[in-house]
Amino acid sequence: MTMFRGGLWGTLILAMVLGCARQLTVEQHGGVPVLTIERQADEPTGPEPAADAVPPSGEGMWPWTQIEKLDGEALKQRGLKLALGDIWTPGKGGLARAVAGLSGCSASFVSADGLLLTNHHCAYRAIQRNSTPDNNLLEKGFLARSKEDELDGHGLKTFVFAEHRDVTDAVLGQLPEGLTDLARTEYIEAREKEIVKKCEEQPNTRCRVSRNNDGLSFTLLSFLELRDVRLVAAPPSALGNFGGEIDNWHWPRHTMDFALLRAYVDPQGRAAPYAEENVPFKPQRFFRIAKSGVAEGDLVMVMGTPGHTQRYRTSVAVEDVSDWYYPKRVAVFTEWAKILEQTCAELPDSCLLTSSTLRGISNGLTNAQGMIVGLKRAGVLERKRTEEERWRQWVAADGERQAKFGGALDDLMEIVKQHRAGRDRDFLIRYIISSWSPRMLGFARTITKWASEQQKPDEKREPGFQERDRENLRSRLDHAQRSLHLVADRRALALFLRLMGELPENERLQGLDKALNKDWRDKSIDRFLKRLYKKSQLGQREERLAAFDADLNTLKASKDSLIKLAFALFDELDQFDDRQKQKQGALSRLRPRYIESLVAMKGNRFYPDANGSPRISFATVAGYRPRDGVRHTPFTTLDGLVDKFTGKAPFDAPPEVIEAIEKRDLGAYRDPVLNDVPVCFLSNADTTGGNSGSPAVDGQGRLVGLNFDRVYENIAGDFGYNPPLSRNIMVDARVILWYLDRVARADHLLRELGL
Amino acid sequence: MTMFRGGLWGTLILAMVLGCARQLTVEQHGGVPVLTIERQADEPTGPEPAADAVPPSGEGMWPWTQIEKLDGEALKQRGLKLALGDIWTPGKGGLARAVAGLSGCSASFVSADGLLLTNHHCAYRAIQRNSTPDNNLLEKGFLARSKEDELDGHGLKTFVFAEHRDVTDAVLGQLPEGLTDLARTEYIEAREKEIVKKCEEQPNTRCRVSRNNDGLSFTLLSFLELRDVRLVAAPPSALGNFGGEIDNWHWPRHTMDFALLRAYVDPQGRAAPYAEENVPFKPQRFFRIAKSGVAEGDLVMVMGTPGHTQRYRTSVAVEDVSDWYYPKRVAVFTEWAKILEQTCAELPDSCLLTSSTLRGISNGLTNAQGMIVGLKRAGVLERKRTEEERWRQWVAADGERQAKFGGALDDLMEIVKQHRAGRDRDFLIRYIISSWSPRMLGFARTITKWASEQQKPDEKREPGFQERDRENLRSRLDHAQRSLHLVADRRALALFLRLMGELPENERLQGLDKALNKDWRDKSIDRFLKRLYKKSQLGQREERLAAFDADLNTLKASKDSLIKLAFALFDELDQFDDRQKQKQGALSRLRPRYIESLVAMKGNRFYPDANGSPRISFATVAGYRPRDGVRHTPFTTLDGLVDKFTGKAPFDAPPEVIEAIEKRDLGAYRDPVLNDVPVCFLSNADTTGGNSGSPAVDGQGRLVGLNFDRVYENIAGDFGYNPPLSRNIMVDARVILWYLDRVARADHLLRELGL
Repeated sequence: MTMFRGGLWGTLILAMVLGCARQLTVEQHGGVPVLTIERQADEPTGPEPAADAVPPSGEGMWPWTQIEKLDGEALKQRGLKLALGDIWTPGKGGLARAVAGLSGCSASFVSADGLLLTNHHCAYRAIQRNSTPDNNLLEKGFLARSKEDELDGHGLKTFVFAEHRDVTDAVLGQLPEGLTDLARTEYIEAREKEIVKKCEEQPNTRCRVSRNNDGLSFTLLSFLELRDVRLVAAPPSALGNFGGEIDNWHWPRHTMDFALLRAYVDPQGRAAPYAEENVPFKPQRFFRIAKSGVAEGDLVMVMGTPGHTQRYRTSVAVEDVSDWYYPKRVAVFTEWAKILEQTCAELPDSCLLTSSTLRGISNGLTNAQGMIVGLKRAGVLERKRTEEERWRQWVAADGERQAKFGGALDDLMEIVKQHRAGRDRDFLIRYIISSWSPRMLGFARTITKWASEQQKPDEKREPGFQERDRENLRSRLDHAQRSLHLVADRRALALFLRLMGELPENERLQGLDKALNKDWRDKSIDRFLKRLYKKSQLGQREERLAAFDADLNTLKASKDSLIKLAFALFDELDQFDDRQKQKQGALSRLRPRYIESLVAMKGNRFYPDANGSPRISFATVAGYRPRDGVRHTPFTTLDGLVDKFTGKAPFDAPPEVIEAIEKRDLGAYRDPVLNDVPVCFLSNADTTGGNSGSPAVDGQGRLVGLNFDRVYENIAGDFGYNPPLSRNIMVDARVILWYLDRVARADHLLRELGL
Repeated sequence: MTMFRGGLWGTLILAMVLGCARQLTVEQHGGVPVLTIERQADEPTGPEPAADAVPPSGEGMWPWTQIEKLDGEALKQRGLKLALGDIWTPGKGGLARAVAGLSGCSASFVSADGLLLTNHHCAYRAIQRNSTPDNNLLEKGFLARSKEDELDGHGLKTFVFAEHRDVTDAVLGQLPEGLTDLARTEYIEAREKEIVKKCEEQPNTRCRVSRNNDGLSFTLLSFLELRDVRLVAAPPSALGNFGGEIDNWHWPRHTMDFALLRAYVDPQGRAAPYAEENVPFKPQRFFRIAKSGVAEGDLVMVMGTPGHTQRYRTSVAVEDVSDWYYPKRVAVFTEWAKILEQTCAELPDSCLLTSSTLRGISNGLTNAQGMIVGLKRAGVLERKRTEEERWRQWVAADGERQAKFGGALDDLMEIVKQHRAGRDRDFLIRYIISSWSPRMLGFARTITKWASEQQKPDEKREPGFQERDRENLRSRLDHAQRSLHLVADRRALALFLRLMGELPENERLQGLDKALNKDWRDKSIDRFLKRLYKKSQLGQREERLAAFDADLNTLKASKDSLIKLAFALFDELDQFDDRQKQKQGALSRLRPRYIESLVAMKGNRFYPDANGSPRISFATVAGYRPRDGVRHTPFTTLDGLVDKFTGKAPFDAPPEVIEAIEKRDLGAYRDPVLNDVPVCFLSNADTTGGNSGSPAVDGQGRLVGLNFDRVYENIAGDFGYNPPLSRNIMVDARVILWYLDRVARADHLLRELGL
């Protein structure tokens, strides 16, 4: 699956969606993108029947603002019936208004009454939080028979895109000379905060400044943030996660990874937290679902908020991820998953609470393994080096270029190399104060940092700790209860402390070194953490929220062991934040120059790296050759689901589903060519984590599928689109309708969907 | 791989090829075969591009005698340029004379000087027997630069098919009434021995009577048995077994599973054992190799000696294999493989000696697992039961049918059920006295049984122990030395004794029960076997052959512990043989009647089950859909080999091979569509174990490939041909030529091949 969770980038994405980080802007350059991974022209991919011909490339995660400028004629020939301006016209909007962001995922409106379609795995926490051991909605699935039955999403939010505006000049126009990198980041953050503050003076509006390629340009994006999102329908996990970790990131896939939500607003139509009297939100636009589906070769457009790609990284940065970051992640996540599994075996009450975290870990693990294999197999490093050699020759050939770009690459590489020092430490700190998991120390850090920032005027506070962030932070501390198991949390934290104990003494957090009396043996860590967890109230919802609401002096007087530890670590954690800012500052100083040079050298059209802002990819329904002698064909069917069915997780399904398939109760959703209901399909859309739940729309603008994953051969696609292998996986809209109709008998929803 | 080794059927096949068992004959009935496994018409296989259309069925392992009677017009339309009579005309022969049998495999002549092409795994023992730790030809590969350099095959034999004749009347014409089943088998065996004896009066000739469907009819087959077969060329195992057990039985495949041998005769042109002065055999016919290759959709004919299929078994027999035989095999083989692997880790001198056995075990294990999955997935049992219900209705509908066939099915089922008693014991006895592995007690059994049978007139002796078998038996005892490791052998035997110790007391071999003083604990068995192996000389070649040459009285006086044990078990082992004969007698009494009824009911053309006699399958080069959303395309390439290459077994290859591929040094063997040299390809030929090394021949009769395996989805095909999934795997002739030309630089062989 393509949901984005954990780790460096996971944290960033989460932060972005929560409105406290920075996004990109829209670039106009001509031609095809740089540094992609493609087979050489003299390396044909072998004999392919007509259907195997490599389809028109789906490369490009285009910002909506750029849609107008694309080659409409070429897209028309590929099957686009809409005018490009109908999809999006700056200052006016378009069909894309039906797309929404959703806590790390994408979603789309599918009815005039605010019905939202997204992935089951994107709605997972909301389903989990409505589940109890006696009424496990993950297991049973859920269907609200009327609006009254719809369930509180417990913190689930959706973001409806409003407008965008280039603010590069407002950010960089007055940038003083000679700033340190840290000061540079802080300067930019201050400008961004001003812009956001002004933007949020509009009612109901959340804003953020989106950075392109670490600061080549800046775009202000504004959103309507809807905070009352309810659960309407979800199949049982057996279907929503059919194939589980075995099939995750792989084709062929038979997963009905969908759920229906509904956005609510207060009776005056304003965004508001959950309240019984709230009413359905009326979106400006929504997608009609096409019962007729798609076929191989058809155009599909995938719209959503992809999280992060690294298409323009240097070879040194690629070395970092392939030799250090992903291998480290594999090692740590493997141990971590084992800890949660053992805890679940030993303490069954932890299983439901940690299930979502465990899924995230497994997913991250598979992703990291796929990256290592994929980067190697595609020879990304070698290609980067070749490209860079070509770049050096190009710069050297011309005096003006030398003046403008000389050293840009070396400077960038130098920064990356400098930041290798202490990277093992910073990798661990990220998890030790995680807001994802383990989270107890993370609670304490949030609470103490919040109280500390409260001392400053709002505009001087750290991004993410301004008044505008209060409700978000509080809501996260509130809803965390539904996936918190103290023993599991403590054991996970013990893992990260053990790993920190393996670092050279001067790289450890000194506050912890002191708390442990420099004794980092496993037993001592366990003893220390047991005491720590016992003497803290932060595991209890009410106490946690009270601490968040308390002022700095009250907290400083607190006897809570975790609050005390967070204060003891306070400065070191601030230094950690500063190190990140320093690197960002350096990158914002250096990368734009390098990217500019690449664009000048290639003279080609350019799309910016994904950064959580709204994008569109124009793609073709297509299979691919994962390896010599094998072709993955673009559709799977209900019949194939039954072939995989074993009756045991992860290949289980409710008896009524198997029965309906075996009875050939296919309703009106049978594909005439397949002679079955399609379950999943492939296209060559350019997607990444964050695109989960993205609608796939046909040439007429009708919803035909729901993106939820990429294929294993495409994991490393984050570092370069690869035409023969870059494929994303979608749930076919027809199987969603089939499930609602023939299995769930949700006639009221089908009517609402206009069917 | 499709080599047939070990277990019940492996023993049979080995016996057949060695000329001591019974084969089938040729049947003329109209129409398509019975009881095949096909998807129902209402279960389409989903959307297929044109290239995916299910090709004309390759079903049928046709006896050569039946070739003339096939539908030549239909085959012409499929691409056959030869007249059917050119392939084989009874009494005259044809192109098929270029096909040969080879110890459990098939082979074919490819030059006027007796050059034989077969699989690397079929020549494996000959390569192994020419290897030493210092000069390991398995590792290095081998190429004889001239005929003088060609290496003794150490017991490798080839069988050149001469003639066939229906002898049903001679066998059954005078069958007395009222024989017991044991007497019935013995009567039939006596007639067969007479016929074989008469046949072998011709010079240079080996004969056997081939039984069809347990005795519906009988055919006398005669062969020229060539006993001096030398090793000419073989790639390193890294290529010949590229992919190893991971890829075994699977597509996509990149294995160059071929070797070249040469058959020799004495200077007078007569079959003779290895002797320096021998000269190359001149075959009547040989295949030209087509450099132009084949393409998807082309006709290919696969010719060879398939070992054993079970297409006409009853549902009760299918229950036996799916619920008992294959699961038992999986359990036992898993432990057995572990024992040999541990022994190799502990005693490195055992590794080379046991490598061939271990390969056979792993192969048998994968086969058994594939059978269990495949039988279940294809619903073979349910289909058999439905067919049988239809049969019962058909019989019940007509008085004449009732009179002729009534009870035929129930009687057959009853016999199968009766033989369930004691089947666990007989399963173990087969291995305890195996001539394959473990073999020390098997040596003793062969030696004592041989001496005992010597007391009788030749025509009264057991099949396999007649004068005609002396040289075979002696040669096996001789050459066994090259793959015998006493500790590994003893540990394997200990496994089978431990399993026997788990049987109820009355099912154990009483002679062993006595030798062990009824103490079957693991430690006691180990102690017993250590003493047994220590006090026997049969592990030494000379002593073993001397024992074979000794007479009964001398042996009875022997102090050799294993000889003494074999005598102690003598009667019990004879009883074991009698039980098999009894079952055979019952089947020969009952099965023909049931098969006749099926043929009458279906009114269709009929091909007999494979039984080691020469067959041909008319097939089409074609991919298939192993599962929903995946298509296996019919060719792999050198480029795909490099993709799999890791530098570590089983995905290793010599550097010069990788280099030649990366340099695109493809010689004249590049396929224009693939733009690469094809390595392996798929067709829908009907094959089974024993077909390893079978030539694949194009419509003009030119050799285009070399069969060596089936796909995993087709393992259960032994129980029924399955058009969408029945695919065999061949080495493409072009990669063989490429290897000989661009890697081995074997110009002299290419010249001999006429290239």
